[in-house]
Amino acid sequence: MSLSLEDLNDRIAARADVTDGSSYTAELISKGIEKCAQKLGEEAVETVIAATARDHKGTVGESADLLYHLLVLLKAADVPLAEVMAELESRTAQSGLEEKAGRAKR
Amino acid sequence: MSLSLEDLNDRIAARADVTDGSSYTAELISKGIEKCAQKLGEEAVETVIAATARDHKGTVGESADLLYHLLVLLKAADVPLAEVMAELESRTAQSGLEEKAGRAKR
Amino acid sequence: MSLSLEDLNDRIAARADVTDGSSYTAELISKGIEKCAQKLGEEAVETVIAATARDHKGTVGESADLLYHLLVLLKAADVPLAEVMAELESRTAQSGLEEKAGRAKR
Amino acid sequence: MSLSLEDLNDRIAARADVTDGSSYTAELISKGIEKCAQKLGEEAVETVIAATARDHKGTVGESADLLYHLLVLLKAADVPLAEVMAELESRTAQSGLEEKAGRAKR
Repeated sequence: MSLSLEDLNDRIAARADVTDGSSYTAELISKGIEKCAQKLGEEAVETVIAATARDHKGTVGESADLLYHLLVLLKAADVPLAEVMAELESRTAQSGLEEKAGRAKR
Repeated sequence: MSLSLEDLNDRIAARADVTDGSSYTAELISKGIEKCAQKLGEEAVETVIAATARDHKGTVGESADLLYHLLVLLKAADVPLAEVMAELESRTAQSGLEEKAGRAKR
Repeated sequence: MSLSLEDLNDRIAARADVTDGSSYTAELISKGIEKCAQKLGEEAVETVIAATARDHKGTVGESADLLYHLLVLLKAADVPLAEVMAELESRTAQSGLEEKAGRAKR
Repeated sequence: MSLSLEDLNDRIAARADVTDGSSYTAELISKGIEKCAQKLGEEAVETVIAATARDHKGTVGESADLLYHLLVLLKAADVPLAEVMAELESRTAQSGLEEKAGRAKR
């Protein structure tokens, strides 16, 4: 895979610092957490629709938008991606049986 | 970052093949695309709420759930993560000015 | 209450028949169920954010948008509002104890 | 239509006051605005999926759940339904051309 999620996160961080009005990313972050959360929610809805409609190309495009806007929201909220990945690491570093038991308790 | 999105995707692919009833992942995928899309939508809503409520820990946990369920949905829909990352690669491999122009046209 | 949901539904039905390009409602319905569903999802996200942010005026406005777009989606999907209200009638015409028992089984 | 939205709202208000643990409505409201908003978001996602999947019965049921949980959220947030309907009244009491012009400005 050429681009990693960490690479994408680096690109977003670089864009967030562009203050000449040319960056969509910087503009979105400047509008605040609510606006970034709204965009994330909208992209999730579009991903849900594309997948339900069995639209392969649409699912690819909307999933890309969803990942991008999740990272933008994390940036706006000052939540490091590394914390999210560490959480996933600890949750998935278990056997299937442990996984199921852990889920059941939630 | 210890765990990459690709690592997580590999773990999900491994779990999806566990047929002894111990895997939450396999169980969810067996319920079909609509159920996986529903879970993705729910996790997105929870991420939106956690971020809006300025709940740092909640945002970490819900973002982790969102990433996990996005990969599960892609698996259920037979959409390779590599296609999504290639889409993101092509979209973000441009300058800020180009980025803005591209967004404006959408 | 001056306007009822049924009144609103009648207004939407009237707008849906306006074919001179002046009706937002007719235009949205002509784009199909997916587009109407997308708008409903977006308004739900905005309602969730406004309520979580304790934004009274925003919650009023977004809830209005949500109700409007739900009725537009039902129209696009050829689902009569009366069927939805009949479902709500049968679900809520029970005592609290029965309500809880019914929910628990779901 | 036998049940009106106002009737449903009255039923929800009555349920909200049941403190003997038998009311799902009272229990949900006691969990706070975030939990009520989460449920609203989940029902919206399910409505979106049912409509996209052309599932008539599912669309009826999920739309009913969505309306119910919207009214519960409004109750939890102390937002009178009458304010939402007044907003809809003022927005829809216009001709199609005015409607389109008003939408375009948003």
